[in-house]
Amino acid sequence: MTGFTAPTDDILFSLRHVTGATAVAAWDDSLSEDILTHFAQFAEGVLAPLNGIGDAQGAQLVGGHVHMPDGFGDAYAQLAEAGWQGLQAPERFGGMAQSPLVAAGVSEIFSGANHAMQMVCGLVPGAIETLLNFGTPHQQDCWIPRLASGEVLSTMCLTEAGAGSDLSAIRCRAERDGDHWRLNGEKIFISGGDQDMSEGILHLVLARSGAVEDGLKGLSLFLCPAGSGVTVTRIEDKLGLHASPTCQLSFNGADAELIGAEGDGLKAMFTVMNHARLDVALQGVAHAARAAQIAEAYARDRVQGRRKDGSAARLSDHADVKRMLQEQASLAIGARAMCHLAYVEMEKNERPDLVSFLTPLCKVFCSEAGIRSADLGIQVLGGYGYLNEYQLSQVWRDARITSIYEGANGIHERSLATRGLKGPGSDQFADMITELGGKSECVMTELSEWQTWRDELRASDAPEKDAHAFAQSTAKLYFRACWKKCSLAAGKHPDPERIISLASFVLNS
Amino acid sequence: MTGFTAPTDDILFSLRHVTGATAVAAWDDSLSEDILTHFAQFAEGVLAPLNGIGDAQGAQLVGGHVHMPDGFGDAYAQLAEAGWQGLQAPERFGGMAQSPLVAAGVSEIFSGANHAMQMVCGLVPGAIETLLNFGTPHQQDCWIPRLASGEVLSTMCLTEAGAGSDLSAIRCRAERDGDHWRLNGEKIFISGGDQDMSEGILHLVLARSGAVEDGLKGLSLFLCPAGSGVTVTRIEDKLGLHASPTCQLSFNGADAELIGAEGDGLKAMFTVMNHARLDVALQGVAHAARAAQIAEAYARDRVQGRRKDGSAARLSDHADVKRMLQEQASLAIGARAMCHLAYVEMEKNERPDLVSFLTPLCKVFCSEAGIRSADLGIQVLGGYGYLNEYQLSQVWRDARITSIYEGANGIHERSLATRGLKGPGSDQFADMITELGGKSECVMTELSEWQTWRDELRASDAPEKDAHAFAQSTAKLYFRACWKKCSLAAGKHPDPERIISLASFVLNS
Repeated sequence: MTGFTAPTDDILFSLRHVTGATAVAAWDDSLSEDILTHFAQFAEGVLAPLNGIGDAQGAQLVGGHVHMPDGFGDAYAQLAEAGWQGLQAPERFGGMAQSPLVAAGVSEIFSGANHAMQMVCGLVPGAIETLLNFGTPHQQDCWIPRLASGEVLSTMCLTEAGAGSDLSAIRCRAERDGDHWRLNGEKIFISGGDQDMSEGILHLVLARSGAVEDGLKGLSLFLCPAGSGVTVTRIEDKLGLHASPTCQLSFNGADAELIGAEGDGLKAMFTVMNHARLDVALQGVAHAARAAQIAEAYARDRVQGRRKDGSAARLSDHADVKRMLQEQASLAIGARAMCHLAYVEMEKNERPDLVSFLTPLCKVFCSEAGIRSADLGIQVLGGYGYLNEYQLSQVWRDARITSIYEGANGIHERSLATRGLKGPGSDQFADMITELGGKSECVMTELSEWQTWRDELRASDAPEKDAHAFAQSTAKLYFRACWKKCSLAAGKHPDPERIISLASFVLNS
Repeated sequence: MTGFTAPTDDILFSLRHVTGATAVAAWDDSLSEDILTHFAQFAEGVLAPLNGIGDAQGAQLVGGHVHMPDGFGDAYAQLAEAGWQGLQAPERFGGMAQSPLVAAGVSEIFSGANHAMQMVCGLVPGAIETLLNFGTPHQQDCWIPRLASGEVLSTMCLTEAGAGSDLSAIRCRAERDGDHWRLNGEKIFISGGDQDMSEGILHLVLARSGAVEDGLKGLSLFLCPAGSGVTVTRIEDKLGLHASPTCQLSFNGADAELIGAEGDGLKAMFTVMNHARLDVALQGVAHAARAAQIAEAYARDRVQGRRKDGSAARLSDHADVKRMLQEQASLAIGARAMCHLAYVEMEKNERPDLVSFLTPLCKVFCSEAGIRSADLGIQVLGGYGYLNEYQLSQVWRDARITSIYEGANGIHERSLATRGLKGPGSDQFADMITELGGKSECVMTELSEWQTWRDELRASDAPEKDAHAFAQSTAKLYFRACWKKCSLAAGKHPDPERIISLASFVLNS
């Protein structure tokens, strides 16, 4: 068993030297390093040791209330006390007003240490942003300070039985009651729908204020505090993320406030959803890195067979194991750069169409990278990888949800190949690839082939048929261009040879 | 939740019309169909309903003895009573003397219904064959009738801590004691090392009768009945196969008999191992088919979105879901044909080098096909796929061991690209591909590219560096050629259109 070490050096290399975070106005270099270093210590010392306990005990529903596994309440109290829940919240609401770039680093470390707990805490930044964009001043004053201090955690209530990927089928009803509203209906798959870590819970609920025939236009977003009228009717028995309670919630005349305009529910919800999608991509990066770490440590120590000179070989000396370790490490570093570039573009706020183009790419590629790296890690450890005690089994099971939730990957691939090709986003993407690849021949050739395909899809009547292959190929181009950039910046990494060797593994395969 | 249905039609199509089983002398067509149909009923009615119970309860080590989950003992009694454990054993030992081809169908159905229980029962045919090849008449008379009747189950004790993929490091000692031997040492990862289903257990133990310096040549094979001198010191806590007890066994002066010649342990063990490898490939086929079955049933019933004409769409109408379902089904059918061809070659016994060439290919490709199909199935079901109640989670977790045990896939890939290219096996493989592909242009072009690569590797000093890519590519060629053959035989399948559509999916992608 290998203890969790946060990949702080790799994160800083990516932000500083690969993705241009330092060019963003809000970036404070030494403060960012301090923040990441502090959070890394907290994650290594407090969050990571609870990861296996959480998996073994799971969250439990007892008498209508969710009990978190041992130690989670105390760890959350420390997290809140240190102000981590308010990392990005404005100072006037008690937050630390830090940039999403450093928050991305913190979020990745959190997920690598304890994905289940990160799930329960991680929707708060999106909720705060939704309140900032769509809330009344009263709503902001009422909720943001409590979210930032950790007094309150938040959820995102979208899915219903029969309305998963198709939100137009949502049936949860909202009815006006004076200047408030009453919610009635059932929501399923609500992460952190209940827990006993925070004092309060704020549900963000997408509900139908209009007629069923209005489809998506009949949906509005509501703030609904946990309490009377909201009950947990079950928690799911899942493959992984056992410590993250996935709740079925029943709303029975629950008191709620409209946030944003009536009928604009989806628009308001998209703030939380886009935030959540990049956060899921970072969860994939976290799993890819963590699985690589466990497998590398094991393969370095484990004696297996003999070298040609007769001395004892390490597992990592074998060609096939080396290949798997390199793939794991390259997935983590490349996927991270893909996410960071999307965050940098979001912060620069000059090419919003590019951000919309990159978000599904990151969601798809990075979630699959996490699962793939965990799978390779199991294979490196062989029989030991199949045992729960070596932790890769948990990484694999926890990672598996990331290609499903926040929009199944197939949905993102379809939207990339259809809506995604309509605006200027894909041309801006081509510009970005050119820049990342330093106009190198290998990247430019691939880009030009990609552009031909893209043009064909744009002209096609049925682009969705090729959506999967196109999205995978687009993501691979993005990944390889990021690695080209990594190789150009290798000298700035504490271990330049490792970066050069991994870049050559990626670019020559 | 979708109940298990044995893919009997697909199995018979594969044996009769794709892989030429009917040309094998021992094949009895109507008896084989009867046997498969009977076993399918037993598997659907008795074995499959215990699969989820076994996963939830797991095997338990209590007071030094393993207790199997509820219902396993009774199901095993029925299995033994019906004579299934002696399906291939010679009639003079009380067996049914059926061909390995029909046994392959039975084994696949068993694994699809309940892989964990199949694991515990499935080493018996290999043990019987080892006894037939290497045992004395007395050893045969003593053990084969008991194995065939189900009174005794058998294990295969190879692995030790520090000697997994590298058997030359085995340290378990065998010392002569009159005309018997005494074993001392520890073995790990012993499937079915103890259980409470059969009256007795016969351990086949690879132990060191010579010096450590003799490496593999100092190893001999021993028959060691469970009892005094053999204790279970732990069972492993695993990702899947919870109902298959993976035991650590301690041998303390355990009474044993040598089987085969002293120093020939590995040779004798290879009979069991080769058998086990193709059986693992069939486990992969079983998982691929079972995962496809669950996902197809779900996608056919689940309403999601609307068709272009406004009517309610099924999940299976969506292009991306269709792609995943087609990949699952094509993996199952193609992988099955790959295995059956290997069994047919083994039975014909004309090209043993070809059998040696096909065995690692089947082990690698089919185990990965099972894992891949389970993964795709989870993705088709989305959030429901991540819940334990829809069973795909168990298929995925159970399947994951198959690319690790009986030789990690990387080891098989290396042996294919090194030893595998030395004899006539790879030329015979090329002949087989030509025949399967009906000399069609697409297969012949791929074959010729493959031959060029093969020749390069044969001449290379370090073929192991390309072993993974080469083995994957070789397996893919084999898979596609099998599909070409399936398409040519499609008219013989109960649902010819399905076969033609899947063949086109495989051959045009």
